[in-house]
Amino acid sequence: MSDRVFSMSGLEVMFSPRSIAVVGASKNPKKIGYELVSNILTGGYEGKLYPVNPEGADVMGLKSYTSVRQIPGEVDLAVIAVPAAYVPDVLMECGEKGIKAALIISSGFREVGNLDLEERLVQTARKYGMRILGPNIFGLYYAPSKMNATFGLSRVFPGRIAFVTQSGALGIAMMGWTNLYRIGVSAVVSMGNKADIEEADVLDFFSEDRNTGAVLMYIEGAKDGRRLLDSMRRSSLKKPVIVLKSGRTGAGASAASSHTGSLAGSDAVYDAAFRQCGALRASDLAQAFDWAKLMTLQPPPLNDNCLIITNGGGVGVMAADACEESGVPIRQLPEDLQLEFKRLMPVFGNSKNPVDLTGQAYEESYAKSVELALKDPRIGSVIVLYCQTAITDPVSIAKAIADGCEAHGCEKTVVTSFIGGTQCNEAMQKLDERGMPSYPIPERAVSALAAYYRWQRYRLKKGQPSPTTSSQAASQVSP
Amino acid sequence: MSDRVFSMSGLEVMFSPRSIAVVGASKNPKKIGYELVSNILTGGYEGKLYPVNPEGADVMGLKSYTSVRQIPGEVDLAVIAVPAAYVPDVLMECGEKGIKAALIISSGFREVGNLDLEERLVQTARKYGMRILGPNIFGLYYAPSKMNATFGLSRVFPGRIAFVTQSGALGIAMMGWTNLYRIGVSAVVSMGNKADIEEADVLDFFSEDRNTGAVLMYIEGAKDGRRLLDSMRRSSLKKPVIVLKSGRTGAGASAASSHTGSLAGSDAVYDAAFRQCGALRASDLAQAFDWAKLMTLQPPPLNDNCLIITNGGGVGVMAADACEESGVPIRQLPEDLQLEFKRLMPVFGNSKNPVDLTGQAYEESYAKSVELALKDPRIGSVIVLYCQTAITDPVSIAKAIADGCEAHGCEKTVVTSFIGGTQCNEAMQKLDERGMPSYPIPERAVSALAAYYRWQRYRLKKGQPSPTTSSQAASQVSP
Repeated sequence: MSDRVFSMSGLEVMFSPRSIAVVGASKNPKKIGYELVSNILTGGYEGKLYPVNPEGADVMGLKSYTSVRQIPGEVDLAVIAVPAAYVPDVLMECGEKGIKAALIISSGFREVGNLDLEERLVQTARKYGMRILGPNIFGLYYAPSKMNATFGLSRVFPGRIAFVTQSGALGIAMMGWTNLYRIGVSAVVSMGNKADIEEADVLDFFSEDRNTGAVLMYIEGAKDGRRLLDSMRRSSLKKPVIVLKSGRTGAGASAASSHTGSLAGSDAVYDAAFRQCGALRASDLAQAFDWAKLMTLQPPPLNDNCLIITNGGGVGVMAADACEESGVPIRQLPEDLQLEFKRLMPVFGNSKNPVDLTGQAYEESYAKSVELALKDPRIGSVIVLYCQTAITDPVSIAKAIADGCEAHGCEKTVVTSFIGGTQCNEAMQKLDERGMPSYPIPERAVSALAAYYRWQRYRLKKGQPSPTTSSQAASQVSP
Repeated sequence: MSDRVFSMSGLEVMFSPRSIAVVGASKNPKKIGYELVSNILTGGYEGKLYPVNPEGADVMGLKSYTSVRQIPGEVDLAVIAVPAAYVPDVLMECGEKGIKAALIISSGFREVGNLDLEERLVQTARKYGMRILGPNIFGLYYAPSKMNATFGLSRVFPGRIAFVTQSGALGIAMMGWTNLYRIGVSAVVSMGNKADIEEADVLDFFSEDRNTGAVLMYIEGAKDGRRLLDSMRRSSLKKPVIVLKSGRTGAGASAASSHTGSLAGSDAVYDAAFRQCGALRASDLAQAFDWAKLMTLQPPPLNDNCLIITNGGGVGVMAADACEESGVPIRQLPEDLQLEFKRLMPVFGNSKNPVDLTGQAYEESYAKSVELALKDPRIGSVIVLYCQTAITDPVSIAKAIADGCEAHGCEKTVVTSFIGGTQCNEAMQKLDERGMPSYPIPERAVSALAAYYRWQRYRLKKGQPSPTTSSQAASQVSP
């Protein structure tokens, strides 16, 4: 065994293995053991891959083995998808082979009452110093390793959000979601029964992972609540931790209990605990991903002055309402800055805040307005809104905004919302691709920005240094 | 003048004119007067169209006139887009010509302080018994007349939602939105300065309009609040009235005042008033359209038993949470019905409510489950959830669900949510097209259903007959 493996933790090996054995690999495309091999190959994994099955039958052109013991080289990670009863023996062989981590895909353990069988896995893992994820999981995806060791979807949109999920179905569905909405993930982790590795372990890993900018967790109940909260407290100082905790209500808690056997606990207690630990609680999936998208693409807000730029009064009002309701600080612009904005709009525009450039705003007004907002140190975050008109082109305006931000170098948060039809959708794709997170309604942009402010306030309250800037920041985000 | 026009109100003529004069029609594609003619033609308007401009220059191949007085035939509607100062004289000519309604596109009236000029329009209209919409509007779209008399977008997705907006920019943007999200509108009405026609008039019209299933209004402030509330009270008994009222907060109200000069008033007062009048207040644009989509595609809920069908436990929990939080009644299924559902799922499924068919649910399980839910009179509404899996095809499952509903004939509310990637998006398009409203997350489906329940409860409380059904409804929606 190489020094590398000795110097890495079990979790590090699990996320970045040099070689993988798939035990239960199958040549039948309808089997999970086929899907796993296929997804690892399709995903572009660059390490060694060894299929293992009783017949030693080749899978997808790869030489197979009848047991992990037969594999000639070292193996870092085992992915186990055999019937539950065989898993303990397979795991023991893995331990003997010196494998450091295992994903146990198989179900049929604690979730159906087989507590003893699951306990045997834990004992075996302890004996050999192995870490195990699962059992009863759909697998693990980690973008930096190009490793899609799941029986979920073959394609995932890579990025900087780590998604950790207690629901398998949800995790697989979210792999599709990343492609549909172009929201990039660094990892998708299926937690399953959490026999060994719990959310806290995974969160600790991601808080140190430079490939991950924010962590998004779907949980129904915690195995060790205190450990999880401790990890959240530590991790939230380093990067945003977004939590989606369902089972909030009686109906939901009862459904959660049927689903994963989780005791949901009092929701108010969870809510207060998350807040104390700096974790950001989202109310639904879309909101959680909206937040994570912003936090992995843009720096946090610089100070307590958010500026709204719009070409439509109505959506400006909507954004202002949402800002006040969610704690995004909106103030009237200083007179000198108002004068500068007035030069970019017709007389019937509005230079206070929201700055209303009016429906006659073309590329240049937008580019110059964004530039003004970026260079003035009194502005700490910017919301750029565009309402589709018959005379202006959303795609060109998106480009002008992105060009402006790129040219200036962006050290404060910028979010955008383009309201309209297919051209606005195209414009928003371009903005997303250029790292300017975009949302189809102003309220979603504001919600993400508000969550970023909450995170920033938590960190400052805990004494973390505020974001540095080359300019003289007039004020900072108040803790 | 024909009997038809005499027997129709000014508003009826405005929405369904047999002939239109565009005063200020231009051959210059950059002018609003060109855009108006172009959109009316592109939209497929089948009546007569007369461009009017001082030169009498032909516009888009249409013979033009120097004044409405020169037009040989009758004219029902005038669309006026000339500089503000000329509008009173043009309007007088329209009155003399016997024109019954006018859209005054031109701006430069009350919104910039020209109160007297606007008052002259009102006097002229009264003198000739004309109704006027505006001034300061982008126009009027009405699907049944194939009339796009706006300078907004040329294409609008036709349907049964009437959209009434105080914000012009928002209205134009929403025309695009209808195409992007395939949410069909019967009308888009730009309210402008409301010199004559107010929201209440328009709402009264739509409440009697058989082409409209729900009305969605964006308002910043009412001119005559009492009239509007009275109209809402009457209209809500007939069809859902959804209100988006911004300027809720100090920041928003201040922005609204700069935008349309509206005095937003105390938001709590508005909120209570809307509720008393049965109007459904949405918190943002997406939510408002989500609700209207359901209400124009599906019948209202039949009774206080909502059933959730899912293939993923996690999204079932989310939906149950959202139901309880928003007042959608979820109860455990009766034993006999549970037994029937158990036959459609593996042993580790769940037959209570949510009914969890598990990730192994194919077309047949979904079709049969939906059938069970539709035919049992104890169920009053159905939420069908699907989480993308690697082994099932969302598009086929969507088809199976829609087939099942169509075969059975649907007299209760069905909403769907397909969570996943591009294939789920395709599946949802198919569902929408077949009248089964679909949403990308369970919470949005539940939010729409909850609003429908609120509307139904309001109507029942006011003594409206509950929805009739051929089956024996075990219970009804409680008022």
